[in-house]
Amino acid sequence: MISQTFVLTLSCPNRPGIVAAVATYLYESGCNILDAQQFDDVPTDAFFMRVVFNRLDGARAISVIMERFTEVAERFGMDWSIRDRAERRRVMLLASKTDHCLADLLYRWRTGELHMEVSAIVSNHHRDVYGHLDFGDIPFHHLPVTRNTRLQQESRIWNLICDTNTDLVVLARYMQILSDGLAAKLAGRAINIHHSFLPGFKGAKPYHQAFNRGVKLIGATAHYVTSELDEGPIIEQDVEVISHRDMPDDLIRKGRDIERRVLARAVRHHLEGRVILNGHKSVVFTD
Amino acid sequence: MISQTFVLTLSCPNRPGIVAAVATYLYESGCNILDAQQFDDVPTDAFFMRVVFNRLDGARAISVIMERFTEVAERFGMDWSIRDRAERRRVMLLASKTDHCLADLLYRWRTGELHMEVSAIVSNHHRDVYGHLDFGDIPFHHLPVTRNTRLQQESRIWNLICDTNTDLVVLARYMQILSDGLAAKLAGRAINIHHSFLPGFKGAKPYHQAFNRGVKLIGATAHYVTSELDEGPIIEQDVEVISHRDMPDDLIRKGRDIERRVLARAVRHHLEGRVILNGHKSVVFTD
Amino acid sequence: MISQTFVLTLSCPNRPGIVAAVATYLYESGCNILDAQQFDDVPTDAFFMRVVFNRLDGARAISVIMERFTEVAERFGMDWSIRDRAERRRVMLLASKTDHCLADLLYRWRTGELHMEVSAIVSNHHRDVYGHLDFGDIPFHHLPVTRNTRLQQESRIWNLICDTNTDLVVLARYMQILSDGLAAKLAGRAINIHHSFLPGFKGAKPYHQAFNRGVKLIGATAHYVTSELDEGPIIEQDVEVISHRDMPDDLIRKGRDIERRVLARAVRHHLEGRVILNGHKSVVFTD
Amino acid sequence: MISQTFVLTLSCPNRPGIVAAVATYLYESGCNILDAQQFDDVPTDAFFMRVVFNRLDGARAISVIMERFTEVAERFGMDWSIRDRAERRRVMLLASKTDHCLADLLYRWRTGELHMEVSAIVSNHHRDVYGHLDFGDIPFHHLPVTRNTRLQQESRIWNLICDTNTDLVVLARYMQILSDGLAAKLAGRAINIHHSFLPGFKGAKPYHQAFNRGVKLIGATAHYVTSELDEGPIIEQDVEVISHRDMPDDLIRKGRDIERRVLARAVRHHLEGRVILNGHKSVVFTD
Repeated sequence: MISQTFVLTLSCPNRPGIVAAVATYLYESGCNILDAQQFDDVPTDAFFMRVVFNRLDGARAISVIMERFTEVAERFGMDWSIRDRAERRRVMLLASKTDHCLADLLYRWRTGELHMEVSAIVSNHHRDVYGHLDFGDIPFHHLPVTRNTRLQQESRIWNLICDTNTDLVVLARYMQILSDGLAAKLAGRAINIHHSFLPGFKGAKPYHQAFNRGVKLIGATAHYVTSELDEGPIIEQDVEVISHRDMPDDLIRKGRDIERRVLARAVRHHLEGRVILNGHKSVVFTD
Repeated sequence: MISQTFVLTLSCPNRPGIVAAVATYLYESGCNILDAQQFDDVPTDAFFMRVVFNRLDGARAISVIMERFTEVAERFGMDWSIRDRAERRRVMLLASKTDHCLADLLYRWRTGELHMEVSAIVSNHHRDVYGHLDFGDIPFHHLPVTRNTRLQQESRIWNLICDTNTDLVVLARYMQILSDGLAAKLAGRAINIHHSFLPGFKGAKPYHQAFNRGVKLIGATAHYVTSELDEGPIIEQDVEVISHRDMPDDLIRKGRDIERRVLARAVRHHLEGRVILNGHKSVVFTD
Repeated sequence: MISQTFVLTLSCPNRPGIVAAVATYLYESGCNILDAQQFDDVPTDAFFMRVVFNRLDGARAISVIMERFTEVAERFGMDWSIRDRAERRRVMLLASKTDHCLADLLYRWRTGELHMEVSAIVSNHHRDVYGHLDFGDIPFHHLPVTRNTRLQQESRIWNLICDTNTDLVVLARYMQILSDGLAAKLAGRAINIHHSFLPGFKGAKPYHQAFNRGVKLIGATAHYVTSELDEGPIIEQDVEVISHRDMPDDLIRKGRDIERRVLARAVRHHLEGRVILNGHKSVVFTD
Repeated sequence: MISQTFVLTLSCPNRPGIVAAVATYLYESGCNILDAQQFDDVPTDAFFMRVVFNRLDGARAISVIMERFTEVAERFGMDWSIRDRAERRRVMLLASKTDHCLADLLYRWRTGELHMEVSAIVSNHHRDVYGHLDFGDIPFHHLPVTRNTRLQQESRIWNLICDTNTDLVVLARYMQILSDGLAAKLAGRAINIHHSFLPGFKGAKPYHQAFNRGVKLIGATAHYVTSELDEGPIIEQDVEVISHRDMPDDLIRKGRDIERRVLARAVRHHLEGRVILNGHKSVVFTD
C-alpha cells in the first residue's frame, strides 16, 4: 500500500528559521518529509517552499495538521496550502479549431500522466470539428463568439467554471483573447500556450513573424494569463532548430510538437503544485 | 596530396536550367562537384547555390574557369564568387573588456578550426586588459572611444580595415554601436554577437532584461551588422535552459558559453562561404 | 493550382559528371529542379542524391521521363526511383499494449502531417486495448503471439503486408523481435523505435538499464529493422535531460515524448524519400 | 560586505526527522539557511542533502558549529562536511597533446568562473606543446610515460598530489588510463572527460566508433574515475546533432565544444559541493 502523501506549498517574506519551523512542525506532527525544495529570491527578499510529506503511524489527522499549521503560517506571514496528492484538480480545456494541444492533453489524461479531472471542454467551434477525438464522459460546450458577443460568451464560460468547480483553465490554442475582467478572475489559474519564444513575436501569427525575421530557432511559451497580452508569468519554454528552408507552414508543423510538450509540462507542473507565483514571474520546482 | 578545392556561391532570380547550366559548365571545364546545396526561396523567387568542386587532370586553369563563368552568370543575372578554399580570409577582431569571445576565436584560429588570418585586434581598452592572452604576431590597436570621438575612432577603424585588406570584421562582444555610415560600408561583412535570443531583448543589458521577464531559456544571436540595432540578418542562434535560481550574474556566466559557440559557428559558416544574404534574412548552407 | 512534383532519389559509385547529367536530363525533359541535395561519401566512394522537380509547360510525360532516365542511370550504375509526391505510401502499423506511438502516428496521419495511407493496424493485443483510439476505416488485425507460434504469426503478418500492398512497416513500440527471415524480407522498409540512445542500452528494459547506470540524458532511436537486434541503420535520435530524482517510471514517462517525436520524424523522412541506405548507415537529407 | 557562507553536504540512511534536526540545529546556532536541496533515494533508502547557510549576528563560531554538528551527524549516521565557500579547492590538471579542455579550464579559472587554485599542471608532453597557453605561476610537470614506466610515473603523480595538497584531479583529455591502484586512491576526487555519450562507445577512438555506427548525435560524459574503464559515476553529459556529412574529423571538432562544456560543468558542480556519490551513481544538486 502506498501511503497518502501531501504537498505543502508556501511563500512569505524571507527570515531566518522558516525551514526549521516547518520541518520541526511536520516532524512533531508525526510526518516524514519525502521531498523539499526552497528558494530565497534575494532581490525581492521573498521565500518559497514546496514540501512533500506523508504521515507516519500515530501521526495527527491531516485536518488537525492543517488547522494547527495556521499558527506557523501566521508567525511568518505565509501564503500556503496543503493538498492531498491523490486529489485530482478539476481542469477545463478551452480549444479552437487547431486541436493538437487538446488531443495531446486528453491522451496524457487518459494514460494518467496528467493527474486531473477534465471538468469540461469548451470551444467556439462545433463538436464535429473534433470528430476523431473521444471525449468520453467529459461534457462538451459549444460557445461561439463574435466581436460583439465576447462578454456574454465569457460570462457563460465563467458560470461554467463556477458550476463545475474548475480549479484550472487551460487555453489549449484557444486563439481568443480573454477580457481583462475574466483574466483578473482567473489570475494564477489559467494557463495559455503562446506559439512563440516570448518575449519575441507577441500577438497574432507568430510563426509568420518568425519567418519574416529569419530566426534560426522557433519556440513556444506556456504562461499564466494576465490582462496584458502574452505578458503573464512564464512557466515553461522550449525551442527547435529551423533553417531557411522552412516556410511558414513548416514552422506551424514543427511548432505543434513544441507547443504540445511545453503546454503539457506546464500543466503538469501546476497540477503537482510545483509552480508558485513570484510577482510577474514564477518559481518552478521541477522534478 | 589533397587537391585544390574551390567554392562557388551564387544567387539569382529563379528560373529553370540553372543547376544544369552550372553543373554542365563545371563538368565541361574538367571539374568534379564534391558538394552542392541549393535553395529556391519561393516567396521571393530567388535562387541560391553553393558548390564545392575540384579540378581533375586536364582541367582548365582556375583563372580561365572563373573568367568564362561570367557568361553563365550573365545569362542568369547571378551575383557570384569562386574562391580557393585554401585561401584564408583576413579577419579583424573588435573586442571590449569582456574577452571570452576573443579568447575563444583566437583558440579556434590556433587549432586551425577557423581557417582565417587575423589581420588585427582592435579594442577600446588597453593591451594589458588581455594580459593572459597570447596575441602572437597579430597587431593590436588600442582605439579608445568616447561619445564625442566616435566618428574619429570609427574612421581610424575604417582606415585599418582598408590598410590591412580585411575581409570580415567580427564584433566579439565589442559593446560599441557602429554608426550608420560604418555599418553601411561593412554590409554583409561584419558579424556581431548579441547576447540574447533576438528579437527578444534588443539593446543594452539583455541578461538583466531576461531576468526581469522571467524567461526559462536564454540565448545568443550572431547576425550581420546593419544600421538598425540588432536587426541585421541572423546567421546563428542557440539557447540554454535557466531557472528561477539564476540571478543576472548566473545568466551572464551561462550566456558566455552560448555566445562563444554561436559566434564561432557564425564566423566559420561565413569563412566557408556557407552564408548568402537574402534581403534582411540569410541562407545558411550548414555542414 | 499547385503543379505535380516528383522526387528522384539515387545512389551510385561516385564519378565526375553525375550532377551535370541528371540536371541536364531533367532540364531537357522540360522539368524544373525545385530542390536538390547530394552527398559524396568519401570513405566508400559512393554518391547519393535527392532531387525534387516539377514539369513545365510542354514537358515530356512523366512516364517517358522515367523510362528514358534508365539510360542515364545505366551509364552511372544507379539505384534509383522517381515518385509522384502526391502518391501516398501504404504503411502498416504494428503495436503492442503501449500505444503512445500508435496514437501519435494516427494523429499526424489525420492532420496530413504524415502523407500516407494506413494499410492496417496489427497488434498482439485485442482491439479493446485501444478503446479510446478512433481507427476510422483502417482494418485492425489481432494477431496474438506466443513463443511457439511466432513463425506462424509472422507468416500471417507477411501475408497481410503482401495482400495490402504495404510499402512500409512501422513497429510503433511493437515489443516483439522479428525473426531473421521477416527482417530480411523487410530490409529498408521496416522502421523500429528503440527506447534508448543506441548503441547504449540495447535489448530489454532500456529505461531500467539507464536508471541503473545513472546517465544524465535519456534518448530514443528510430532505425531500420535488421536481423541483428537494435543494430540496423539509424534514421533519427533525440535525447532529454534527466536527473537523479527520476525513477524508472519517470524515465518511461519522459521517454514517451522522445519516442513519439523521433519515430514520427523518421517515418516522415522515409515517406518523403529523404532516407537512402548506405550500407549499415543511412543518408538523411533533412528539410 | 558579503557575509561568509558555508556549504553543508551530507548523506545517511533515510529516516524521519533529518531535515528538522539539521534545520533546527543551524537555526539554534544562529545560522540562516540560504539554499537547501535534498533527495531521498527510495530504492536504496539513502538520504542526501546540501545546505548553504551563513551566520547571523551573535552566531556561534564556525569551529563550534562544526564541532557540535558531530552530535547530529552521529545520531543519523551521516557522512558529512562543512566547507567555507570562499576557500578554494586545490585542483591538479592532467593533460595530453589535445589541449582544448586544459585551455578552457584555465580560462574559466582566470575569470573566476571556476573557484579553485590550480595546484599543478601535469602532462606526458613537453611544455612547448602548450606554447600559446599562459600558465602564469602554476607549476608545470612534464612526466612522460611509456607502457613500462606507467607505475613509476603514476607514483610521481601521486607524490605530487600529496605534496601539493591537491583536493581534486581533473583528467582534461589526459588519454592515459590510470592503474587500478591510483584510481582507488583517487576515488571520488578524480574527474575524467570521455568523448562519447556513455555507455555508448567506451574505450579508444569513440568518435571513429560513432562514425562507423552512423549515430545522429554525438556526446561527451564527465565521470569520476574508477578502476573500471569508463564505468565511474556520471556527473554530466551533453550531446550535439550530427549528420551523414560529418566525417570523423568533423566529429572530433564538434566534440571539442561538447567536451569542454561538459567537463567545465562537472568540475564546477564538484567545486561547489553539488555532487554526492551514491554507490556507482551520483546525486547532482544543480543550480
